[in-house]
Amino acid sequence: MGQALGKVQAKPVSLKQVHITDHFWNYYIDLVRDVVVPYQWDAINDRIEGAERSGAVSNFKIAAGLEKGDFYGFVFQDTDVAKWLEAVAYLLVTKRDDALEQLADEMIDIIGKAQQPSGYLNTYFTIKEPGKKWTNLTECHELYSAGHMIEAGVAYYNATGKRNLLDIVCRIADDIAVVFGDGPGQIAGYDGHQEVELALVKLYEAMGNRKYLDISSYFIDKRGQQPSFFEAEADARGRSTHWNNNKIHIDPEYFQTHRPVREQEAAVGHAVRVVYMLAGMADVAKETGDESLIEACRRLWDNIASKQMYITGGIGSMAHGEAFSFDYDLPNDTVYSETCASIGLIFFAHRMLQLEPNSRYADVMERALYNTVLAGMSRDGRHFFYVNPLEVTPDVCEGRNKNFNHVKPVRQEWFGCACCPPNIARLLASLGGYMYSTNGNTIYSHLYIGGEVELSLDGTKVKLKQHSSLPWEGTARFEISLAKPAAFTLALRIPGWASEASVVVNGEAYALTDKVVDGYARIERVWTSGDQLELVLAMPILRVRSHPLVKQNAGKVALQRGPLVYCLEEADNGAQLQQLLLPQDAKLEDAYEESLIGGIHVIKAEGSRLQFEQWGTQLYRTDTEAAMEPASLAFIPYYAWANRGKGEMTVWVKERF
Amino acid sequence: MGQALGKVQAKPVSLKQVHITDHFWNYYIDLVRDVVVPYQWDAINDRIEGAERSGAVSNFKIAAGLEKGDFYGFVFQDTDVAKWLEAVAYLLVTKRDDALEQLADEMIDIIGKAQQPSGYLNTYFTIKEPGKKWTNLTECHELYSAGHMIEAGVAYYNATGKRNLLDIVCRIADDIAVVFGDGPGQIAGYDGHQEVELALVKLYEAMGNRKYLDISSYFIDKRGQQPSFFEAEADARGRSTHWNNNKIHIDPEYFQTHRPVREQEAAVGHAVRVVYMLAGMADVAKETGDESLIEACRRLWDNIASKQMYITGGIGSMAHGEAFSFDYDLPNDTVYSETCASIGLIFFAHRMLQLEPNSRYADVMERALYNTVLAGMSRDGRHFFYVNPLEVTPDVCEGRNKNFNHVKPVRQEWFGCACCPPNIARLLASLGGYMYSTNGNTIYSHLYIGGEVELSLDGTKVKLKQHSSLPWEGTARFEISLAKPAAFTLALRIPGWASEASVVVNGEAYALTDKVVDGYARIERVWTSGDQLELVLAMPILRVRSHPLVKQNAGKVALQRGPLVYCLEEADNGAQLQQLLLPQDAKLEDAYEESLIGGIHVIKAEGSRLQFEQWGTQLYRTDTEAAMEPASLAFIPYYAWANRGKGEMTVWVKERF
Repeated sequence: MGQALGKVQAKPVSLKQVHITDHFWNYYIDLVRDVVVPYQWDAINDRIEGAERSGAVSNFKIAAGLEKGDFYGFVFQDTDVAKWLEAVAYLLVTKRDDALEQLADEMIDIIGKAQQPSGYLNTYFTIKEPGKKWTNLTECHELYSAGHMIEAGVAYYNATGKRNLLDIVCRIADDIAVVFGDGPGQIAGYDGHQEVELALVKLYEAMGNRKYLDISSYFIDKRGQQPSFFEAEADARGRSTHWNNNKIHIDPEYFQTHRPVREQEAAVGHAVRVVYMLAGMADVAKETGDESLIEACRRLWDNIASKQMYITGGIGSMAHGEAFSFDYDLPNDTVYSETCASIGLIFFAHRMLQLEPNSRYADVMERALYNTVLAGMSRDGRHFFYVNPLEVTPDVCEGRNKNFNHVKPVRQEWFGCACCPPNIARLLASLGGYMYSTNGNTIYSHLYIGGEVELSLDGTKVKLKQHSSLPWEGTARFEISLAKPAAFTLALRIPGWASEASVVVNGEAYALTDKVVDGYARIERVWTSGDQLELVLAMPILRVRSHPLVKQNAGKVALQRGPLVYCLEEADNGAQLQQLLLPQDAKLEDAYEESLIGGIHVIKAEGSRLQFEQWGTQLYRTDTEAAMEPASLAFIPYYAWANRGKGEMTVWVKERF
Repeated sequence: MGQALGKVQAKPVSLKQVHITDHFWNYYIDLVRDVVVPYQWDAINDRIEGAERSGAVSNFKIAAGLEKGDFYGFVFQDTDVAKWLEAVAYLLVTKRDDALEQLADEMIDIIGKAQQPSGYLNTYFTIKEPGKKWTNLTECHELYSAGHMIEAGVAYYNATGKRNLLDIVCRIADDIAVVFGDGPGQIAGYDGHQEVELALVKLYEAMGNRKYLDISSYFIDKRGQQPSFFEAEADARGRSTHWNNNKIHIDPEYFQTHRPVREQEAAVGHAVRVVYMLAGMADVAKETGDESLIEACRRLWDNIASKQMYITGGIGSMAHGEAFSFDYDLPNDTVYSETCASIGLIFFAHRMLQLEPNSRYADVMERALYNTVLAGMSRDGRHFFYVNPLEVTPDVCEGRNKNFNHVKPVRQEWFGCACCPPNIARLLASLGGYMYSTNGNTIYSHLYIGGEVELSLDGTKVKLKQHSSLPWEGTARFEISLAKPAAFTLALRIPGWASEASVVVNGEAYALTDKVVDGYARIERVWTSGDQLELVLAMPILRVRSHPLVKQNAGKVALQRGPLVYCLEEADNGAQLQQLLLPQDAKLEDAYEESLIGGIHVIKAEGSRLQFEQWGTQLYRTDTEAAMEPASLAFIPYYAWANRGKGEMTVWVKERF
């Protein structure tokens, strides 16, 4: 459907084509299937004792006229149901589950009954303020909620072939296309929280109805134009705010409406909004070939990835506005780094890879996935981080709680604003969709995750079976199955962390000289069924330093091995982590510990601990120097932290020069 | 008047007895006289263009029936007038100024007319909510405001001998003694912001009326008793809060009402409240000899000075509640360290010195005075810090403003809540009162500030003329004038920063062996008029380290010379101060720079700057090590920072080991 851009452009290989059989990832995907999604269903049905009330399902029943009661929750409470349905859809793709599908169908029935004749679907406004719909786009998340339902509808259709939810969401989108636009009686505006843009492109791709792409483009093009739509909208309703009796004050940067999107130079404001917007922009650009939009995507990508991203792939340096702050400002302790923002960054990276396959996008995608996203969930699948700090001192979180009340030293059970757990669920359940893409007769392999994929290249069916030893070792083996020999290129990402890479095809070394283009090793040959390819990525322990302008990390180092960023935890290293130093010449050793946190590789080093002999009770002393005593340091993967109770943690460690 | 405690107890030498002629300090005292107090008068009269409205004087005129209008400002707006009068009183002690005195008398006339027949004096409740007086002690600062007016009344009486304001404040205190107590119809409670306790002891000392001491004791004894008075008071008025329509939530720790004061183990809650309370407790203890109260003062002193005090003498680690956080938690950037809190700490130290002369109190008094208090005001006397950070990055203050909106990288013109500037004014104007105390026939010299003092020891009149080269050099010379030879002891504080101390009397060395008691060198002899004593305190540049549990300063060092703490400023060292290191063996050189910020000593050192060659645009790199390049470091006294425009500053610098 998409127009050719006259340049390299890849298509994603969909979840449906991939079957993951990876030791590392299947644990998490099974957790989503067996624990997270059932738990989430109970949560949105208010069946979990002691948890915060959700109201999400009940809101739909009330709006459908099936129950009496009041709306409960946030204005965007509907999205918890939508995200649950989307996760269910992805699970159904990879494994049939009639009971689960029936549950989903029943939920969809209720949703259908809650939809208004116009197509409008939003339980908050239906139940609570029917006269006020579309009057406060700035604050009320109507298009955001619509976007999530549209994503669910497309996913459910792709998974099951059923149109029940698809028809509902087409009506939502049709309604949006009537309500919004520059015509008479239309609202010449856009959403307060971006999301519907990318959803409408998904719907366009599913349905082929150009109208959905056009309205998505419209929202993107309108955003940030002056005079401000949000200001006009506020004036029209007497400048009321939805939350209290105050008058509204709109911070355009928070909403990315300070400038037209094509003129934005840096990522500013609410981090999730930024990356959802950029994912939508990349989607539209891919379909329209709009070079100015691609250029804006690249510019903002560069700003994020080279100036505003934590080493863990986290984004958002401040709690206030859950937002970006400014270039090179990456506080490790008061950090926001919302799980959802890293998921949004993955969405954006995944789309950029379709616009222009380049390992810089996949490297970030992998970084966010293996570190922040995985850290967002506990090993039991029942506890979640919304905020992902890189440095935690429980005393500080609890004792200086105004600056730190967003930072939890242990994962929480659920959230009143439950955006992150279902977002993790839908991402992990659809992980297969992020692994490959194709372009002409090239297969791009972005992530090394074991499993099978079936795809077509110019009519040739190719089946790849991947065995991966990641993230612990750097070997990925591919077996090719074909009906008959065929010429195509296997483009294998050489990750930034791989100090060396080598390829062996059918037992013979394949020289990579001049074969690595944009970070992908291009293995171009006539393949025969049964061919074997082995990629070996050297995975040394890396000492990572930050750009000199990152104040918080000056004089500090972090360790990384393969895609995994490491950290020091109190459980292994004692308290007072600030006293530890890693000498520049310390030998770093990697050791597998089978019984630790599900089996992890630990990095061990002989470090130093700042010590003062007999300091005494004085707060300040002038008659003593810090002495160094040897300290055995043990680093664990960041994703695995906070699985052994409450304690200190730090990713960045002082270097001893 | 005070009862003997059966132990060493010193009496302060009052401001009236001291005439400061010190090069260093007279600059600031003259600034208070010539700039701050006149400016403050214009400010409280709303005559400063562009400044926030004060309303303070006008409120009194309205309450006095002399003007029509509404109350304006905080519930404690009256204290701006009280503190101005108190500062004026101190200025009048040291220099007659008929015009200023007349201005004060006119103001006092108005205040008298604003007083109610009962003695009650508070313009907020008189004008705005007459029916609600004494119904919300928790929030409404009535006793706090009364306390400040009482302090002003006593100071004005001591300065001028006039009873005009004294009579007014006696009526205030008489009214308080009627309203509060355990008797029928009385309020069995206490203040929401401590201050009146110390004020009532001043009034007791001026008037000799035991009732004033008793009611001060009453407030102290009642505080923290259970059931909670604040809770009962809230219940009695339907739990309303004064600020909005919400119900009140009382945090007992914020108000130091979590336990009876004698049982409090650590300083918690609002820092100014804590130290004002402790000053009042020490005052009462001094008068009553209550050992349990002294013990509580010592315990909380120890907690503050050895676990919760910045190297600058600042207290209060968090903006939320302007409060202490917890032991060893001393963030340098999000710090509060309110100027008023350090002033309160000086009040407390000054009282402890009367209970038990010990240099640990005077050392802290000096530390707070020369560093935080002086830093609170600019060299032009027109700009002030409320919050005194030890590490500032303007980008961070402005770009991450929710956590940093209390931290200003440059001094501000005035404050809506203008507690700090007038507090600096009254402290500096009364500085002479903090220098000496006597006990029997011992004269204690706590601060080395040039000037003359006249005092009596058991009937012997002694005149001391002090020449001090502090804070730049460590010599203090004393000339003694006496009518006839007399035996007494001159007890000279040997500051903690002095690595060596020597005394020469009339040209001959005086051995200090066994003469230093509780940090004071006791020079005991028969003195004759014309005797000369020279104290030489070695003033090396000190490298200061923090207790190992202070996370924020681990691996860092600060420099101090004499009483002055030093800092690095961007103006001298370039930006990116986080990249600088001070080698443990770096030679530190002291150089006087006459033309810099009024003439200061600068400490110079050959340090290192973390550098990466050709870092490029990447945010993270694994293929490079930090290299050290030489960097000339220049440290200036902390008090002098932010007098050369906006820039980075840090007190604590990385050490290179």
